[in-house]
Amino acid sequence: MSIQIAPETAHSTTTFGERVAKVLPSIASNVGLAEQERKVPDANVAALRDAGFFKAFQPKRFGGLEVGAEVYGPAVVDIASACASTAWASGLLAQHSHMIALMSDELQHEIWDDDSTALVSSSVAPLGKGTPVDGGVRLSGRFSWSSGCDHATWAILGFLRPDPIVDGALATHFAIVPRSDYAIHDDWFVAGLNGTGSKTLLVDDVFVPEHRIESQIGLMTGLSKGFGSNDGEIFHTHFAHWFAMGFSAVSVGIARKFLEVYSDKVSTRVRAYTGANVGTTAPAYMRLAESHHQVRAAYATLSADWSAFTQKARSRVLPTIEEDLYWRSNQAYATKMAIEAVDRLFTASGGSAWFQHNEMQRLWRDSKMTGAHTYSDYDIAAQTLGRSLLGLPRDAAGF
Amino acid sequence: MSIQIAPETAHSTTTFGERVAKVLPSIASNVGLAEQERKVPDANVAALRDAGFFKAFQPKRFGGLEVGAEVYGPAVVDIASACASTAWASGLLAQHSHMIALMSDELQHEIWDDDSTALVSSSVAPLGKGTPVDGGVRLSGRFSWSSGCDHATWAILGFLRPDPIVDGALATHFAIVPRSDYAIHDDWFVAGLNGTGSKTLLVDDVFVPEHRIESQIGLMTGLSKGFGSNDGEIFHTHFAHWFAMGFSAVSVGIARKFLEVYSDKVSTRVRAYTGANVGTTAPAYMRLAESHHQVRAAYATLSADWSAFTQKARSRVLPTIEEDLYWRSNQAYATKMAIEAVDRLFTASGGSAWFQHNEMQRLWRDSKMTGAHTYSDYDIAAQTLGRSLLGLPRDAAGF
Amino acid sequence: MSIQIAPETAHSTTTFGERVAKVLPSIASNVGLAEQERKVPDANVAALRDAGFFKAFQPKRFGGLEVGAEVYGPAVVDIASACASTAWASGLLAQHSHMIALMSDELQHEIWDDDSTALVSSSVAPLGKGTPVDGGVRLSGRFSWSSGCDHATWAILGFLRPDPIVDGALATHFAIVPRSDYAIHDDWFVAGLNGTGSKTLLVDDVFVPEHRIESQIGLMTGLSKGFGSNDGEIFHTHFAHWFAMGFSAVSVGIARKFLEVYSDKVSTRVRAYTGANVGTTAPAYMRLAESHHQVRAAYATLSADWSAFTQKARSRVLPTIEEDLYWRSNQAYATKMAIEAVDRLFTASGGSAWFQHNEMQRLWRDSKMTGAHTYSDYDIAAQTLGRSLLGLPRDAAGF
Amino acid sequence: MSIQIAPETAHSTTTFGERVAKVLPSIASNVGLAEQERKVPDANVAALRDAGFFKAFQPKRFGGLEVGAEVYGPAVVDIASACASTAWASGLLAQHSHMIALMSDELQHEIWDDDSTALVSSSVAPLGKGTPVDGGVRLSGRFSWSSGCDHATWAILGFLRPDPIVDGALATHFAIVPRSDYAIHDDWFVAGLNGTGSKTLLVDDVFVPEHRIESQIGLMTGLSKGFGSNDGEIFHTHFAHWFAMGFSAVSVGIARKFLEVYSDKVSTRVRAYTGANVGTTAPAYMRLAESHHQVRAAYATLSADWSAFTQKARSRVLPTIEEDLYWRSNQAYATKMAIEAVDRLFTASGGSAWFQHNEMQRLWRDSKMTGAHTYSDYDIAAQTLGRSLLGLPRDAAGF
Repeated sequence: MSIQIAPETAHSTTTFGERVAKVLPSIASNVGLAEQERKVPDANVAALRDAGFFKAFQPKRFGGLEVGAEVYGPAVVDIASACASTAWASGLLAQHSHMIALMSDELQHEIWDDDSTALVSSSVAPLGKGTPVDGGVRLSGRFSWSSGCDHATWAILGFLRPDPIVDGALATHFAIVPRSDYAIHDDWFVAGLNGTGSKTLLVDDVFVPEHRIESQIGLMTGLSKGFGSNDGEIFHTHFAHWFAMGFSAVSVGIARKFLEVYSDKVSTRVRAYTGANVGTTAPAYMRLAESHHQVRAAYATLSADWSAFTQKARSRVLPTIEEDLYWRSNQAYATKMAIEAVDRLFTASGGSAWFQHNEMQRLWRDSKMTGAHTYSDYDIAAQTLGRSLLGLPRDAAGF
Repeated sequence: MSIQIAPETAHSTTTFGERVAKVLPSIASNVGLAEQERKVPDANVAALRDAGFFKAFQPKRFGGLEVGAEVYGPAVVDIASACASTAWASGLLAQHSHMIALMSDELQHEIWDDDSTALVSSSVAPLGKGTPVDGGVRLSGRFSWSSGCDHATWAILGFLRPDPIVDGALATHFAIVPRSDYAIHDDWFVAGLNGTGSKTLLVDDVFVPEHRIESQIGLMTGLSKGFGSNDGEIFHTHFAHWFAMGFSAVSVGIARKFLEVYSDKVSTRVRAYTGANVGTTAPAYMRLAESHHQVRAAYATLSADWSAFTQKARSRVLPTIEEDLYWRSNQAYATKMAIEAVDRLFTASGGSAWFQHNEMQRLWRDSKMTGAHTYSDYDIAAQTLGRSLLGLPRDAAGF
Repeated sequence: MSIQIAPETAHSTTTFGERVAKVLPSIASNVGLAEQERKVPDANVAALRDAGFFKAFQPKRFGGLEVGAEVYGPAVVDIASACASTAWASGLLAQHSHMIALMSDELQHEIWDDDSTALVSSSVAPLGKGTPVDGGVRLSGRFSWSSGCDHATWAILGFLRPDPIVDGALATHFAIVPRSDYAIHDDWFVAGLNGTGSKTLLVDDVFVPEHRIESQIGLMTGLSKGFGSNDGEIFHTHFAHWFAMGFSAVSVGIARKFLEVYSDKVSTRVRAYTGANVGTTAPAYMRLAESHHQVRAAYATLSADWSAFTQKARSRVLPTIEEDLYWRSNQAYATKMAIEAVDRLFTASGGSAWFQHNEMQRLWRDSKMTGAHTYSDYDIAAQTLGRSLLGLPRDAAGF
Repeated sequence: MSIQIAPETAHSTTTFGERVAKVLPSIASNVGLAEQERKVPDANVAALRDAGFFKAFQPKRFGGLEVGAEVYGPAVVDIASACASTAWASGLLAQHSHMIALMSDELQHEIWDDDSTALVSSSVAPLGKGTPVDGGVRLSGRFSWSSGCDHATWAILGFLRPDPIVDGALATHFAIVPRSDYAIHDDWFVAGLNGTGSKTLLVDDVFVPEHRIESQIGLMTGLSKGFGSNDGEIFHTHFAHWFAMGFSAVSVGIARKFLEVYSDKVSTRVRAYTGANVGTTAPAYMRLAESHHQVRAAYATLSADWSAFTQKARSRVLPTIEEDLYWRSNQAYATKMAIEAVDRLFTASGGSAWFQHNEMQRLWRDSKMTGAHTYSDYDIAAQTLGRSLLGLPRDAAGF
């Protein structure tokens, strides 16, 4: 009996999904290379570019596809089953296009006019220092965790400055900086998702003109410079759900892959001490069933929200704060479920699963790390939603 | 911020749902009466009858509505939030119509010709003894757990006999018996779902003609006597998913109600020893958030399957064994999630939640009991799905 | 194989334990009566009095035994296995003697001179109002949750007043009041531990002289009026651990009983639908094993602490704040483990476990309710210990 | 407030413990080297040898100490807090002495006469093939997972042959083979416990004389060749508990270390996006508290059993099958608790915990891997104990 995490027979029932599906075998074949190079292999980026994956959320006027989240999400799940790191980093590169499409028209042209396939990486926590100067800021800082930066020609970098939208209070802004303005410092030596190449970008006193700067709050309230610059329905909304939807999709994709690997391996596994066939024992198959149910529930949760926030965008009404909180925190919960599903199976996979040549240990590490991102952190998500459900003001412990 | 367990603003967006929604306040007002009478109050059955609830799965030729599971399910969730016992028992009474619609045309006419609002209760485990006689069987037995029996005029009762479909092996059959042929023994003294009135039906050597007998396997394989007797699309499928879909819907409905009650109570709760306001502490609101996420995931799982098995029926192709297993075992998992969500909140509700005048203790008992049914038992579900996923033969530990 | 929750063959290896063990069968035989009367049956109190149980922590000069917590604790576990409500209420009555022994010598004589078997119930949350008058206070209030009050001739009642130990800040004090000064209001209608008779004591403007008043902080710091009035080693310590040690012991005792009941029932249980023997399926016996391990761990935790705080008292050095926090919060964790152990088994006990004549449902309700007391509340315990471990100041969310 | 996992102030209250405690700083300083060399560093083995650690279970006539398990266990916990891999492998080397002391007197002399500090590694699953020849067997095989083999001069290797104790049924036997008879194949490339050097031993048709062969069942029943050859009380018992007691002790030691590291790091941790101090948020300190409680419970469980099986040995009565099962399966449960305690904290430690220079990720990997050993596998433990508790025969799914 096959592993299925959704009622529909297959994810890849869309044209977009089908094109991505064709390159999955080659991406899967590079999974060792990704871990070794500690970045997404060039061949994977090329394959996904050819498949049109990076076009998903790019405005049509620059050659993009403007697909909905319910079309895009399953593709990220599929890629993650082939190579989690590739899905994580490439997903971000694709998702950033949605954010860029809300920024100034001038910036969009700068990025995509000459090269409509240009990619943008990010480091959005406000780690930089922006000194106000005439016509913009001078930016400096060490911007860490920039997944996929090796394949990007621009970077979205966070810093704090007073934001008129909130009466001049300090708030996160993003400076979008061309590749020539930053160096990549390779400090990506980690225990999971090794192939994302999430290195540190070094910026030393670089001028960023105002049209390349956006307020985070502006991007969440329809007040960004380029809001309305693209007619596509998917751009009439907040950036956050589109920007961040990949993390949980990757987590579910890894979990689905683990279900398959576990099923294969446990069927033939015997205990060294007794010769017993593990796969015929109740705990072995009950763990599989429970993880299967859990991954289905995680996928059902995400799937419902992908449709909901796409539909909301199409309605051309901005989401409410409640919707924002549900969509955001449901993702952290889905990630938590997917991680638990993998861990339940890995727990019962024995010592041989720990050898480096066994993909189980890598999938387990990758899976766990999908929960380490701020966006996936369930303590943050639960605090934020919980306070809101009881009518308490948001506090700094939230996101 | 309001409690919502689905992306859509409200469940009751269908005509069917709206009609049911109108009687919910009166059902809710009888929740104490239901517990006291240990059966569904007559007024509740009358209200649901007037709302058309029992017509959901009845064939149109007898005045039924033939709505899809995705229309019916949310209504059961809604009723369960008002009164769990009413939803459990009334749900079964409504769901049985789908099963009857697959049985002999003669039987359908016997039940509904004179009274198109006639209801049928059941006790489907093969607890009876059927002695073969000319033209049928003579049936005897004590048939327990017949929820809602006080409101039914017929009963579906299980017994074993050789089944030609499986080469004459002993298999469960159902005898459908009129009210005059059985006595109701009131032994319904329990610790949860007190209002379901799931009493024992006593049958003493009653003749059941062949047209009132169906094979369970026949009902799962399109081989029952009345398969095709009704043209409606929802009848071109297995009976089990429609018969049993209420259990998990009730569990989710209770959980949603508990989220609301907890939100209300915790906001004003203070600790007796310190005077501290509990509702502003992180564990109090994080428990609420996690239970909220979990109930959403449970609902998303059920909702996806309600659509899937309705769509399958409409396609007029019988479900595969895989689909049967997914739909069936997902329900047990959703129930498990809903119970955990309630228990997480009740755990932190303090001693005052235990007084009989506090609905929390009742909701918690009702919630837990939704998992005690064979269909909801997660050990059974996980064993059955797990064995299937690994290609092992079904064994008796399963369902 | 027998159920054992401690490495030693039997608990009752002490003279104290053996005397208690002899009356357990008669206590167990009254378990239905306790639930029906909603208080500890008179016969149970008489039996425990004859066994010397209430003498455990009473000073020797009044005929007490002054046994250590490591001798007393196992006896409470044993009683709880026979009747949880009896153990809860009788335990408190016995434990209160330790607190009284730290109070004014005059009070001790008032209570025990005429009747050395006099028992004292309590309601220690500061629910009362004490108006200062010459030589004491005038006390009024509704004091709820006074377990075992029907069997006591005095009551310990909480109220707030300025405490010189903390520079006159408002702090909890206890007024000890004779039976003639309060009425018992029977409002004990609850969903668990029904037999504890934890009713409300009504006090209407009663004069309490100063020698019958103690500061809670004084009792935690060796500054109470009668500290040193008894020479026994067990009285050279804080009152709290001795006062409150029964709650977790009861929880573990219920859990041990559930292990036994489950083992008996599951061995012969068959599934109604399939006739399968449940007791030979892996989930059934693995749940038993895990709950068994968990109850052992809970008992090992308590047992280590009973020895530790008795040994500390014998050393005649007052416990540190760290030790207080460990001993207090470990009990909440042990209770949490015991409740989980019971719930895991009840979850898989099927519908028949829910009938009122089946003790499983009562044990499950009693078990869960042991966690509802402020002292057992794990959110409080975790917050308090957690803050302390990180060097944060105690806050009102704690105890 | 300091982290303490036992009521006593410190573990190292024994002379044995104090000597080991002195070398812990140097062992801790080599933790990176251990991971890099993928074996226990020579300096660590030398330090532990000087401290007398390997003498714990060696017979006094060869210069051993014959300490009890309650003295030895805490030392392993302490070493594991310094370096998990060192504790795992060195623990096994020390524990093997107990097994050797039950084997033929001739073998004991061969091993220890010339070098009383000689160490023995093992690979006890019956992976080899032993061809019977005159006076012994000819042994061949690939014996994997031989922790600490680089530091040993003998190896205990498993194979199957008919065992007269069980009427000639095939059963595991151990061949003890000198270093000259096997090659070490370095295939130790794993994701956790990298420093244990658990490589594969290659044996090619080597003669093993009968006095170097023992039946596993013999070692569990007082029927081994050297039973009684040493007068020490700790040798009048089964080998298994002493052989295998290190695994769970290592797991608890890692967990205690993680509690300390987490406490340190979380106190100063700030969120990149908001600047919020994580250590002052409730989920951060409540996770710490719960893991602390859980590790205490795990330690209390082990500690009670260490005392129990040492006391049993001193009583010179062989353990019962029940005791064997409790001691064995409690260890798996304690390991499970310790792993959960670490995982709960790592889950909330954020992305920075994943960098290779952060010990958290190593501790988390090491912790998880302690559960992957057959002896620690909780599915095996629960099945075995559970079947026994219900009186079912042992099956191959157990150990």
